[in-house]
Amino acid sequence: MLENFFKPYSVAVIGASREKRKLGNQVLENLLKAGFPGRIFPINIKAGPSTRILGMKAYSCLMDVPEPVDLAVVVVPSRHVLSVIRDCAAKGTDSVVIISAGFKEVGSTGLLLEEEILKLSRDSGIRILGPNVLGIIDTHHRLNASFAPSFPPAGNIALLSQSGALGCAILDEAEGKGIGLSKFISLGNKVDLDEIDFLTLLKEDPATEVILGYLEEIERGRDFIKVAKDVASQKPIIMIKAGRSESGKKAVSSHTGSLAGEDEAYDVAFQEAGIIRADSFRQAIDLVRGFSSQKIPQGKRVLFLTNGGGVGIMASDACEKFSLESASLEESTRERLQGKLPAASSLDNPVDILGDAKSDRYKVALEAVASDSNVDGIIILLTPQSGSEEEETAKAIRKVSSETEKTILVCFMGKRRVKKAIEYLRASSIPNYEDPEAAVMVFEAMFRYGQWFKRSVEEIKTFPVNKAKVKSILSKSKKEGCLEIGGNLALGVMEAYGIPVVKSWLVKEAKEALKVAESLASSVVMKIESPAILHKSEAGAVLLDLKTEKVEDAFHKLTERAKRLVGNNGIRGISLQPMVRKGKEALVGASLDKVFGHLIKFGLGGKYVEIYRDVSTRLVPLTPGKAKEMIRETKVISRLLRGVRDEKSSDIALVEEVLLKVSQLVSDFPEIVEIEANPLIVWEKGGVVVDARLALRKGINHGCS
Amino acid sequence: MLENFFKPYSVAVIGASREKRKLGNQVLENLLKAGFPGRIFPINIKAGPSTRILGMKAYSCLMDVPEPVDLAVVVVPSRHVLSVIRDCAAKGTDSVVIISAGFKEVGSTGLLLEEEILKLSRDSGIRILGPNVLGIIDTHHRLNASFAPSFPPAGNIALLSQSGALGCAILDEAEGKGIGLSKFISLGNKVDLDEIDFLTLLKEDPATEVILGYLEEIERGRDFIKVAKDVASQKPIIMIKAGRSESGKKAVSSHTGSLAGEDEAYDVAFQEAGIIRADSFRQAIDLVRGFSSQKIPQGKRVLFLTNGGGVGIMASDACEKFSLESASLEESTRERLQGKLPAASSLDNPVDILGDAKSDRYKVALEAVASDSNVDGIIILLTPQSGSEEEETAKAIRKVSSETEKTILVCFMGKRRVKKAIEYLRASSIPNYEDPEAAVMVFEAMFRYGQWFKRSVEEIKTFPVNKAKVKSILSKSKKEGCLEIGGNLALGVMEAYGIPVVKSWLVKEAKEALKVAESLASSVVMKIESPAILHKSEAGAVLLDLKTEKVEDAFHKLTERAKRLVGNNGIRGISLQPMVRKGKEALVGASLDKVFGHLIKFGLGGKYVEIYRDVSTRLVPLTPGKAKEMIRETKVISRLLRGVRDEKSSDIALVEEVLLKVSQLVSDFPEIVEIEANPLIVWEKGGVVVDARLALRKGINHGCS
Repeated sequence: MLENFFKPYSVAVIGASREKRKLGNQVLENLLKAGFPGRIFPINIKAGPSTRILGMKAYSCLMDVPEPVDLAVVVVPSRHVLSVIRDCAAKGTDSVVIISAGFKEVGSTGLLLEEEILKLSRDSGIRILGPNVLGIIDTHHRLNASFAPSFPPAGNIALLSQSGALGCAILDEAEGKGIGLSKFISLGNKVDLDEIDFLTLLKEDPATEVILGYLEEIERGRDFIKVAKDVASQKPIIMIKAGRSESGKKAVSSHTGSLAGEDEAYDVAFQEAGIIRADSFRQAIDLVRGFSSQKIPQGKRVLFLTNGGGVGIMASDACEKFSLESASLEESTRERLQGKLPAASSLDNPVDILGDAKSDRYKVALEAVASDSNVDGIIILLTPQSGSEEEETAKAIRKVSSETEKTILVCFMGKRRVKKAIEYLRASSIPNYEDPEAAVMVFEAMFRYGQWFKRSVEEIKTFPVNKAKVKSILSKSKKEGCLEIGGNLALGVMEAYGIPVVKSWLVKEAKEALKVAESLASSVVMKIESPAILHKSEAGAVLLDLKTEKVEDAFHKLTERAKRLVGNNGIRGISLQPMVRKGKEALVGASLDKVFGHLIKFGLGGKYVEIYRDVSTRLVPLTPGKAKEMIRETKVISRLLRGVRDEKSSDIALVEEVLLKVSQLVSDFPEIVEIEANPLIVWEKGGVVVDARLALRKGINHGCS
Repeated sequence: MLENFFKPYSVAVIGASREKRKLGNQVLENLLKAGFPGRIFPINIKAGPSTRILGMKAYSCLMDVPEPVDLAVVVVPSRHVLSVIRDCAAKGTDSVVIISAGFKEVGSTGLLLEEEILKLSRDSGIRILGPNVLGIIDTHHRLNASFAPSFPPAGNIALLSQSGALGCAILDEAEGKGIGLSKFISLGNKVDLDEIDFLTLLKEDPATEVILGYLEEIERGRDFIKVAKDVASQKPIIMIKAGRSESGKKAVSSHTGSLAGEDEAYDVAFQEAGIIRADSFRQAIDLVRGFSSQKIPQGKRVLFLTNGGGVGIMASDACEKFSLESASLEESTRERLQGKLPAASSLDNPVDILGDAKSDRYKVALEAVASDSNVDGIIILLTPQSGSEEEETAKAIRKVSSETEKTILVCFMGKRRVKKAIEYLRASSIPNYEDPEAAVMVFEAMFRYGQWFKRSVEEIKTFPVNKAKVKSILSKSKKEGCLEIGGNLALGVMEAYGIPVVKSWLVKEAKEALKVAESLASSVVMKIESPAILHKSEAGAVLLDLKTEKVEDAFHKLTERAKRLVGNNGIRGISLQPMVRKGKEALVGASLDKVFGHLIKFGLGGKYVEIYRDVSTRLVPLTPGKAKEMIRETKVISRLLRGVRDEKSSDIALVEEVLLKVSQLVSDFPEIVEIEANPLIVWEKGGVVVDARLALRKGINHGCS
């Protein structure tokens, strides 16, 4: 499938031209320059019987080509594209790259055009890349069906880009730095084929070992995760997802007419799928160079070998910044090295073999640390000093690298004196970084990927729940036109899923309130239950910490207030809860992301949630292991739950269970677009949800408590 | 002063050698290669009357040189260095660079040697750079008195480095990338001359416009700030301060035998001094290229001009990440451009002039945005696409840059096709960055420096205080051997400086307690006052929220408990405070940093301070403006104080005053090594410190309340 895009026997360029400045000329020129081994057919509507373009016979129409055409590359103006595709259908050409622009990125006429193209594609079975793309490249099949001015060397990295311009930059970087690519696919407007199709293809592509992508938006979020996870289990995916910021998102919209999803959802989805997210162009290039050439580290204990103390310190700083572990050499390695290195060397990490280290000293040290079982990877630092032997040292590194299973990254600093050595290293699949921090960043990403790769796949845990009760509450609310549910009803939903909630009574009379209060050991909280009063505390609709003798008075006071606020019919009654004893206040919530579905959130709870912003997020459905991770990931609430100083630990198992149950709840009821338990009060043993709310699909109109 | 280090008429190399692998040969060779215009005298103890080294007459001893010697460069083994300096004294050579290693970095013998060198320097007036240095370079005077293998082109950047190896890397980078340096000074062990001396010198150096430094430690912290601030008011200082992390610090110690100060103090000190701190080598190089060639922006409104949507989005993301403002073009600029750019161009920011933009379109757009008064600076993005005219575009940029006062940074992405254009830009003082994020990072740092530069210098505000009372509390405590002071005494110290504290009574009898309680409107808190009980809550030494009728009972209960805990004589009595009404809980504290003196801290208060870590820090003495900044800088407590949702704002003016008064207190009493008011309860109007503690110099032994 899709083979004709990368290994066609024949290619037609529809819109081929003799004029150098035209894309139809550049594409043809690129096909020739790359040495495409198959047949090439220029198509130009004005071609006569003897017209030749770049030395090749031209045809006025695809149908005139006397042989089968596997791949059509279309560069004609957008208004002619539909008829060209019809020609392809007639000719039996099943693979089309539409380079032409002027579609949804220019407005509604273009969007309509795209819809027709899609229909034609579905009807005819023709697969379409584009429109509005730079083109497609397969270095191993010497196919350059693009108007990119740069052509990279062949290699093991596939590049997928939603931006043609960024594609150009990466291709030029690759050509200039000798970074080898297998394929380049410009995604453009994705009318038919998109990143999911190409990820699926690249998974099986033997020439591709690493995938680098640039995306602005994803539409089929859940499918994307599923496919990406599958692909990432075979080969690493490094992805730049632009449009992180609000202003970046605005730029996305004006660019390819697409609307970017909430950025945080992308972070969570990429993490789930094992995708390494790069924040910048430079970082992406650094990452891809490491992943495409070195082994994935089995652990995070990194050893630095240096000929300069200062750069060693900078490396140590970076090691801590990226939460890697500084490896400690085994005693036997130290002994082995003691006699062979000058006395002033340091055998701590960084191993400092001093400024006058020549290649032999690097070699001795490197061989020793590479065979040390406390070391998962080695970052070799070199600054060009007067006695340094840059190239010989590179050779020694190559030798050791070829004999070890450990990850080796290199940081030869400087420019002029290290140039040749760096080129030699690159040719030996050993990436060099400009500074220690970049090397450490890459090592950490590779380690993280390795951990993801080795992760154990967990079953989803399902609890026995009262689904019928929730169904009834939700449908009743919907019938009443209430799409936002709070108070007792929301607590009832939680309770139906086995989540402990504070007991709550809805009373209509003062006597009833008194009776309930008398049955409780603690003082009570009383609230007006009314869908019309959303901010109860501010409206004076809540009274706290009431002793039994005050309950009847409080009832009258609240009903009086309710009458004034919303009239007699606006209230369901007065709710009454026991005052809950103090504990740690957490928040558990879930919300529906339009691209990736439900996300579940855990964090510090209470009144000031939005200010503390101590939250972790995962995709639904949650597994027990991920629930644990979510709790650990928070900075504040995880520490509070573990207990500070003399405090005992709180009931973390309960929190995990609540997270899993909320995950199950939103999985069972996808119409819940938002749900929040806040606070969930957690004690040493047990805990309760004191307040909750949820919102159902179709916008939020007015609340129901 | 120090002129002979950079512009000597004659230089002697003591320890000169004919053997290529020796430093004494390399230094001599470097002097010759750089084309030093003055006289050079090789000194080698074994030199005979006709010995020549590298073609120059050699002498066996400095005294034999028949002419005056301005600068001596010493490369003899460390054990001979003292006698060589004595020779310098005898000869009248007042400037000495000791390249030789084997001093404090190798242990105590080396340290002793350094002490003798320092004494000799002080006695003789000889100024010494080193030992353990790479040497010294002045490109404009063609002096290369170092064994660095690379020699940079002449330029306006001075480089100060405590690490010779990193110095080598930067020199090689500069040579390879054509970054011009004015001077290079390797600081080494800093026995005599240190960064402060050279900063002072560089301030007056007309050849130097930007200073780049690498430091591992600073000893004279306050002097450093004073001098650096003075220098930074003339020319920007970019500094890498390594040893941020714990492991990095360990590496510092094993490296130059120095102990790094608390890293946060460096951040605060650099900020105060207007120094731009770089986190990595790459960042430092990026920064220095911007600062040394472009104008400082007058505002933070940045305009992106791009030929690719994707890279524009990445730039917008970076703009938000670095808190810059995306400039909005004036209506007149839009009108001016509308006719001149293709219809599909975007005139929002990023201004997208499309993939087929040639140099003329860049020129038109650039001229328009450069004259737009909503724009403080322009970052020009270009990816090499098929029609791109990289070099012509560079020329257009140069022209506009020469005609505008605005900051212009460039990001031509890729490698091969943009190479020549980038070289042309560099020669035109327009720095190119590998990716948009790097350019944005540099712009932000330049903007921040500009703001620092324009800052208004504020007076320190002094309050009338009762200094005598504090003096008496502190000296009484010291006499009693109490260096840690808590409870009523600590509150007393605060109160003496006009800081509102909760009222507190020390009572010895139950009747007395009752009397106090009866005089108060609220319930009370009672605590055992004992220097021996530090963690009062945990020890059960605190009873909260007591109604008047419970006070006598509580008194007996606490005294009983105190007897059991510490015996009859261990307590001062029982303290009694009114329960303080709720408010926002803040923390105000100060601590003594061994390098930079007192730091003052403000943050979220309460029991979980260390978990929330919501703190801002400044140097003492604080000014009113900086107090305001400190409050604004915190993420949580500043928001809480401003009021969340319907809440009213708290008394921020009070908090500012408390900060200023604590600053005044530790300035007046430098023996206070630590002081903390936590919580400072802040209300809409007013507030009080409820608990406080302080520690006096000479370690902490046992507490006194």
